[in-house]
Amino acid sequence: MPEETTAHPVEALLRAVEADDQSAVLAIASEIHYADLAQAYQDLDEERHPVFLKSIGPELAADMLVELPESMIEEALDHFRPAELKVLFRELSDDDRVDMLQAVGDEARLRYLGLLGPEDEELTRSLLRYEYDTAGGRMTTRFGRLFASMTVKQAIEYLRRDQDNTETLSRIFVVDAKGHLIGRVRLRDLAFNTWDTPIRDIMAEVGSEQRVLATADQEEAANILLKYDLVVLPVIDEFDHLLGIITHDDAMEILQEESTEDFERFGGIAGDQDEATYLNTPTFSHFRRRAGWLVGLAFVSIVSGYVMMRFGSVLSQAFVLSLFLPMVVAAGGNSGGQATTMVIRAMSLNELIQGTGTRVAWKELRTGFLLGLLLGICMALFTAFILPAFSPGLPAGIGYPRLALSVAVALTAQVTSATFLGSLLPFGARAMKLDPAVVSAPAIAAIVDVSGMVIYFSVVRTLLGL
Amino acid sequence: MPEETTAHPVEALLRAVEADDQSAVLAIASEIHYADLAQAYQDLDEERHPVFLKSIGPELAADMLVELPESMIEEALDHFRPAELKVLFRELSDDDRVDMLQAVGDEARLRYLGLLGPEDEELTRSLLRYEYDTAGGRMTTRFGRLFASMTVKQAIEYLRRDQDNTETLSRIFVVDAKGHLIGRVRLRDLAFNTWDTPIRDIMAEVGSEQRVLATADQEEAANILLKYDLVVLPVIDEFDHLLGIITHDDAMEILQEESTEDFERFGGIAGDQDEATYLNTPTFSHFRRRAGWLVGLAFVSIVSGYVMMRFGSVLSQAFVLSLFLPMVVAAGGNSGGQATTMVIRAMSLNELIQGTGTRVAWKELRTGFLLGLLLGICMALFTAFILPAFSPGLPAGIGYPRLALSVAVALTAQVTSATFLGSLLPFGARAMKLDPAVVSAPAIAAIVDVSGMVIYFSVVRTLLGL
Repeated sequence: MPEETTAHPVEALLRAVEADDQSAVLAIASEIHYADLAQAYQDLDEERHPVFLKSIGPELAADMLVELPESMIEEALDHFRPAELKVLFRELSDDDRVDMLQAVGDEARLRYLGLLGPEDEELTRSLLRYEYDTAGGRMTTRFGRLFASMTVKQAIEYLRRDQDNTETLSRIFVVDAKGHLIGRVRLRDLAFNTWDTPIRDIMAEVGSEQRVLATADQEEAANILLKYDLVVLPVIDEFDHLLGIITHDDAMEILQEESTEDFERFGGIAGDQDEATYLNTPTFSHFRRRAGWLVGLAFVSIVSGYVMMRFGSVLSQAFVLSLFLPMVVAAGGNSGGQATTMVIRAMSLNELIQGTGTRVAWKELRTGFLLGLLLGICMALFTAFILPAFSPGLPAGIGYPRLALSVAVALTAQVTSATFLGSLLPFGARAMKLDPAVVSAPAIAAIVDVSGMVIYFSVVRTLLGL
Repeated sequence: MPEETTAHPVEALLRAVEADDQSAVLAIASEIHYADLAQAYQDLDEERHPVFLKSIGPELAADMLVELPESMIEEALDHFRPAELKVLFRELSDDDRVDMLQAVGDEARLRYLGLLGPEDEELTRSLLRYEYDTAGGRMTTRFGRLFASMTVKQAIEYLRRDQDNTETLSRIFVVDAKGHLIGRVRLRDLAFNTWDTPIRDIMAEVGSEQRVLATADQEEAANILLKYDLVVLPVIDEFDHLLGIITHDDAMEILQEESTEDFERFGGIAGDQDEATYLNTPTFSHFRRRAGWLVGLAFVSIVSGYVMMRFGSVLSQAFVLSLFLPMVVAAGGNSGGQATTMVIRAMSLNELIQGTGTRVAWKELRTGFLLGLLLGICMALFTAFILPAFSPGLPAGIGYPRLALSVAVALTAQVTSATFLGSLLPFGARAMKLDPAVVSAPAIAAIVDVSGMVIYFSVVRTLLGL
C-alpha cells in the first residue's frame, strides 16, 4: 500500500490554526482541496475545531463537512450560528444535505430543516424518506434532464441556465412529458450536432438493467455502475419516473464501505462500520465492537475444553499424543477459515447466485480432502522419520508407523470436514437473510475446534486401541 | 448482498449457443451489453466457446474479451484467425489492448504485436514498458487533449474530428507546446462559452496532487481518484509531460481487486487474486493457493504441541484444568485476529501513515487489556458460581476461588498480549516492505496459540502451586 504524501499546505494550515491566525487559515483553506481540508480538520485536537471552523466560514465548511466521518458532523455543525447554518446548507448539494441530516440526532434534524428555504425543505424531506443505505438515500437530484421534444439549441440553453445546479453533465437523461426515463444523451452529442437536431434523434436508449429502483440496496446500485462501467446511474421509482442519479464517486465510496464492513465482520468485529478513522475512534468503542464475539466464543470454547477433559485419560497415557492435538485443532480452524474467506468474497462479488451452494460444497469437499491428505502425508512423514530422533516415548505397544497413520487420518478427516463446513456456513447465513460475513474467522475456528477434539480423540482411541 | 437478476437475453443467448444457431447468437449478442456477453461466455462449457466466438465475430468479441478474467484471454484469442485478430485488436482501446497482451504468453505476445499496424505497434510497445499494476500500465492514451493557444471553436473542431478516439470527454486536458500538463477544461465549458474564447482563459488548474506518475502503484492512482472525487486522473512522467489518463471505472476495478487481495491474504490464501470467478477456478488451483499456509502453520502448531507435552503432568493432576486450556488459547487467536483486522483495514484505507505505530500499539494495549479483563471476569464468575454445580473434581487442596483467579489472570494476560501483538505485526510486515495483509488470521492464531499455552501453564503452576 502506498504512503500518503503529506501536502505542505496542510501542514501550513495546521500551524496557522495552532497560532490562532484566522486570516492565514482562511487564505490557505481557500487554496486547497476540500478533501485535504477535511483531513486537516480530523488531525486537529478537538479544542481547535471552533477556531478552524470560524476561520473558514460556512461556505468552505460545507464542502469539507461532506468528507468528514458521520460521527463528527453534529459536533461541527454545533459551532455555527443559525444564520451561518443557512448559508452552509444552501451550499450543499441535496444528497449531501440529506446525508448530513441523517448523521445528526432527531432534535437537531428538525431544527436544521427549519433553516432551509421552503423549496429545499420539501425536497430534503422527500429524500429523507429513503434509508441512508438505499439507492434513493444516496442519489442526487441535481442532474441534467431534458425533454425528448427539445432541439439541441433549446437543450443547450436549458442546461446552461441550470448549470450551477447540476453535479455532472457527462450524462444527461431524457424524459417524456410525464417524467418517465426514456433515454440519455452525452454532452458531446449536443456539442457536436447541429442546433436544430431534435433530442429524440440523438438520444440513446437506457437499458432496463442500467437503472436502479430508489428502494434498492446501495450495494446493488454500486455493482451496476461497476459492471457496466457507468459514470452515472439513473434512479427510478416503480413507475419508471426518473428521480435522481448516483454518480461514480458515490459508487466508489459505497464499495469501499461495503468491503470494509465485510472485512471487519469476518474478523469478528461487530456493528456497523464506523466512518471515523481507526485513530479517531475512542478505545472504548474499539472495545465495544469486539467484546461480544470474544465473550460468546469463549463459552463455545468451553465445549472444546469439556471434550478435552473427558478424554484426559487418553492424553495421560502418553504425553506424545499432546504433540499433535493443537495441530489437528488449528488445521481445522485454518482450512475452514480459508474456505469461508473464499466463499464470502465470491458472494460479495456477486459470483455465487442462488442455487450454487451444491457446486461450491462439492468443490470445497474435494479441495478440503486434497488439503487434508497433503497435510496428513506431511505429518505422517514427520512422525515416522523425524520424531523418533527425539525419542518422546510412545504408549505401550505402539510403534511410530501406527502413530503416523493415526495423525494422518485425524488430519485428513479434520481438514476435510472443516473446509466443507466453512464453505457451507455462509450459505446458511444467507438463507437466514444474514450477511454471510457474520460467519467470521473466529466463529468458524471455535466450531471446528470442537470437532477437531472429537475427531482426534476418536481416531487415536480407535487406531491405537487406547 | 443483493442477488444478481438474470437478464432474459442472456438465457436466450445461452440457448442459441447450445442449439448451434449462429445467426441467433449474433442477433442477441449485438443487442446486449458486453458485460453480460462476458458473463454468458463464462457460464458456457469450454467446448461451446468456439461456436460462441465464431458467431459473434471479432468486433463484438473485442469488447467482451476486456471483461474476461486474464486466465481466459489466451484460449479465447486462439480461436481467431490472424485476419480476425487484426480486426479485433483494432477495435480495442490502447489500454485494453495492452492489458490483453500482458495476459498472454511471451510467444503469443510477439505474434500478436506483429498483427498491429506500425503506429499501434509502436504505441503498444511503449505502453508495455509499464508493469500491469502501475498507473502507466492502467492508463489509456485515448483522451481529449487541447493546446492552450486554441480558441473554443478550434477546440470543438479538433475534438470532433477525433471523437471516436477518446474514451471520455468529461475532462479534457490542456497542454503547452511541449506537452506539459497545464490545465483542464470540461466539455460544458466549451459548449457554454463563445467560440472565440481562448482555451487559456477558461481552463482550470490541475493541482499537483491531482495527477499521478506513470510508475506509481495502481492503488495510489485509485486512491487519488477516490479522495478527490475525480472522473479522470491525468498520468504524467517525471517531467510533467501528460502521458495518459486513468478513468473512474479503472479506479473502481483497482479498488475491488485490491480489497479482494487483502481479504484473501488475510484469510490465509496465497498468491495473486485470480481474476477467474470462484466457480470457474479449478479445484486444484484452490488447493494450491491454500496448501502453503496450511502446511507451514501446521509445523508452527507443533511448537504448541511441544509446550503442551512438556506441561502434560500439570493437566494430569486435575482434568478440570483441560476445561480452560482451549479457551485461553482460542481467546488469543480471536482477539489477536480482531486487532490485526482493524489495523490492516485502516492501513489499506490509508489511515495509518508512517509513524503512527506507537499510537496504534498504545490504543490496542488498552483495548486488549479491557477485553482481557472483561473475559477474565466473565470466566471467573463462571468458575466460581456455575462450575461447582458440575463437581468436576479439583486438584488437591485447591478451591474454586483460586481456580477462578488463575483462569482470570491467564485470560487477561493472553488477550492483552495477543491484541498487542496482533496490532503490531502488520507494522512489522510493512516495515519489511511486505503487504501488511500477509499477517493473516491463521498466522496470528498460530503464533498466539504458543503464547497461550505458555501463559496458561505458567499461571496455573504459579497460582495453584502445581
